[in-house]
Amino acid sequence: MQPLQSMYDENTEQTYERAGFGATVPRGARPAIVVVDLSRGFTEARWPTGADLTDVVAATARVIAGARDIGAPVIFTTIAYDAAEAEGGAYAWLDKAPGLRVLRSGSELVDLDPRLPVAARDPLIVKKGASAFFGTHLAATLTSLRVDTAIICGATTSGCVRASVVDAVQSGFPVLVPRECVGDRASGPHDASLFDIDAKYGDVVALEDVLGYLAGLAAVEAAGS
Amino acid sequence: MQPLQSMYDENTEQTYERAGFGATVPRGARPAIVVVDLSRGFTEARWPTGADLTDVVAATARVIAGARDIGAPVIFTTIAYDAAEAEGGAYAWLDKAPGLRVLRSGSELVDLDPRLPVAARDPLIVKKGASAFFGTHLAATLTSLRVDTAIICGATTSGCVRASVVDAVQSGFPVLVPRECVGDRASGPHDASLFDIDAKYGDVVALEDVLGYLAGLAAVEAAGS
Amino acid sequence: MQPLQSMYDENTEQTYERAGFGATVPRGARPAIVVVDLSRGFTEARWPTGADLTDVVAATARVIAGARDIGAPVIFTTIAYDAAEAEGGAYAWLDKAPGLRVLRSGSELVDLDPRLPVAARDPLIVKKGASAFFGTHLAATLTSLRVDTAIICGATTSGCVRASVVDAVQSGFPVLVPRECVGDRASGPHDASLFDIDAKYGDVVALEDVLGYLAGLAAVEAAGS
Amino acid sequence: MQPLQSMYDENTEQTYERAGFGATVPRGARPAIVVVDLSRGFTEARWPTGADLTDVVAATARVIAGARDIGAPVIFTTIAYDAAEAEGGAYAWLDKAPGLRVLRSGSELVDLDPRLPVAARDPLIVKKGASAFFGTHLAATLTSLRVDTAIICGATTSGCVRASVVDAVQSGFPVLVPRECVGDRASGPHDASLFDIDAKYGDVVALEDVLGYLAGLAAVEAAGS
Repeated sequence: MQPLQSMYDENTEQTYERAGFGATVPRGARPAIVVVDLSRGFTEARWPTGADLTDVVAATARVIAGARDIGAPVIFTTIAYDAAEAEGGAYAWLDKAPGLRVLRSGSELVDLDPRLPVAARDPLIVKKGASAFFGTHLAATLTSLRVDTAIICGATTSGCVRASVVDAVQSGFPVLVPRECVGDRASGPHDASLFDIDAKYGDVVALEDVLGYLAGLAAVEAAGS
Repeated sequence: MQPLQSMYDENTEQTYERAGFGATVPRGARPAIVVVDLSRGFTEARWPTGADLTDVVAATARVIAGARDIGAPVIFTTIAYDAAEAEGGAYAWLDKAPGLRVLRSGSELVDLDPRLPVAARDPLIVKKGASAFFGTHLAATLTSLRVDTAIICGATTSGCVRASVVDAVQSGFPVLVPRECVGDRASGPHDASLFDIDAKYGDVVALEDVLGYLAGLAAVEAAGS
Repeated sequence: MQPLQSMYDENTEQTYERAGFGATVPRGARPAIVVVDLSRGFTEARWPTGADLTDVVAATARVIAGARDIGAPVIFTTIAYDAAEAEGGAYAWLDKAPGLRVLRSGSELVDLDPRLPVAARDPLIVKKGASAFFGTHLAATLTSLRVDTAIICGATTSGCVRASVVDAVQSGFPVLVPRECVGDRASGPHDASLFDIDAKYGDVVALEDVLGYLAGLAAVEAAGS
Repeated sequence: MQPLQSMYDENTEQTYERAGFGATVPRGARPAIVVVDLSRGFTEARWPTGADLTDVVAATARVIAGARDIGAPVIFTTIAYDAAEAEGGAYAWLDKAPGLRVLRSGSELVDLDPRLPVAARDPLIVKKGASAFFGTHLAATLTSLRVDTAIICGATTSGCVRASVVDAVQSGFPVLVPRECVGDRASGPHDASLFDIDAKYGDVVALEDVLGYLAGLAAVEAAGS
């Protein structure tokens, strides 16, 4: 069991240890990278919904490069609403978070950050909710591809990343979150969600750890061929 | 727009206001109460998974009483695993949170807290994951019953309550969370999740506010009859 | 209880009556029209996946016109795969039904039949599976819009229509299927699925019946204003 | 490509061949058996909802025996409603198929057929709808267990089996349906659904074929140990 990296006091850590949280998840032989909402509306500070996530994009690009070496699937998501969807009451979420209505299909805000090494064959999942799994075919795609481990990157940590991590493990996938590959608008919610994720839903680990795991799979593959 | 009740600094609040979060959700004429995991394993301090949630149980009982006056549905959930389920690898979540394996079907831990005013006609949803919606018929039940507002109570705030709130709004239901009716093992994660919920997923409000809303519906009903 | 319109013998009908199937569903005040896969790849005989569904398109246009009078939502679906999705193993369904791989995003085959009166504000749901609900946000959209009755049209009766009908009622919506508004490649599977739908999942009714239902709601609305 | 075993004329077969249906699905190394609703309410003729499915139960028992030899998961489902659920409007499906209200929790009708070789470790999924996947944790369980092939048995062919087959392939699992292991109340709907399943969703094969596939995996395992 790895230590919970706490933003809270010692008492909280002891409470979680007692409850039996924070175990290390198994790592499989067929990981996939799920890149949640690294669209310009979230990675660029010039949009109200965004923040400067240059470092997150760069770190995620390194994970993607590691995935290419073993042919692991890389799946991107973006939130996008048609004009009618944005205004018409079709999504209860937009009543609570009306700022997201600016994420219009066809606008720059929903384009993936151009600094990401997106390949033509990478699936792009257009979503309407917080979780990359809710109301999408992501779980079916991961299952069809026989994926056994989900490496989740993206934004925001306390919003779509966290919701996606919870759904990934509920869907049957062990989850790794490389800490450098997730970002948020503010550090408080970011840190709190990383604590909760690591305690209850997936392993929050260093980028180098994930790169080493992918390189290890590449080595196995090379030896086997 | 209500002020975000922040555990964080002023900057965080400004960032969220700018992003367009924290609007007040519409309140409908057909609410349902969803009581998440107020089973003894979570409400009693004597279990490793639990904490003393006496106050949460008492406050939730008041909301339930208000719901009875208008015949609003009250739906309870509990987490329970058969011995085989608990040990057999059928739930990836249990690899990360092995402490939950103690929640065995037929044990006291999975019984609803006996202090709750449960009626024979209240549906009980047995769940295996964090969200009350994931892998259950809860959304279908709420839709069948023509519910238009979800009032979510229970435990733990940063775990199953939060995951259920996110899924409720994603499923199309405006969400109210009466602050006194949710509880957690530790105050840090509790406060952080209430902040996130109120900012992005549902209105975190005072118990009295929810009771007033239910009483208002009762008055409308009485006037109409 | 309406008579089951049987393609089978009297014994079958008696068996179903005994089992307690074939009741008439309640009709609500807020219907939505779901038009399943009336894209050119299914409505035009010149494609391998298609059949000449001119009559189905014309009948569906009449239902849509009825819906416009009461401002009822009209939601269209189409199946579309990117090149990578079509070839990459991301959908187990395409291994069984490889003919569907021709339904490429951006091709004429996935365009809605131009004879349909599509409005700019109508949601279009791009789906990857048979059911309009599976892996999509359709249920969440119908729930967000407070829809209480699903009128399902489209193609093919034994494929995507039937799968969508089953998911609609499972999701909590009473279902009406106007007989003239659904079509298939061959009459055997078409008739068999209409029998099953009417027995177990939704009411298969005449187009005029549905038009009358919508007109009745329009009259109520006019009287109330 | 295997020939479609048609209940219809030659034209229908040609139409389906042209559409690109009826391919043979890949068979993986980690199958699971899903036994849909072989509860007494469906397998015994004395109940209104039932039919004498003695042969189906016997054939399914042989598949289960084959699964035991390789430790493959065997998962059972049953439909069961509490009294409140059966009467309270919580399931739109029961408005259409009110006969299913007799399937009460705790009654003999919902017990698995005692002639089935159920083991203590086999998961039992209690469902409320037609599909074994809808509103249940079945997909998550199969994914957690790293299953790559779903062998679906049970009742009724045109009802819960077909709905489960459609959801299984949509969820990412190749599907095999051993013909002797599925049954229905009437032969017309049974035959029509087997035709549709084999054309579009999964391979309808002989029992001996499935037994041979399982025995082949057992041989591989024995050789590897």
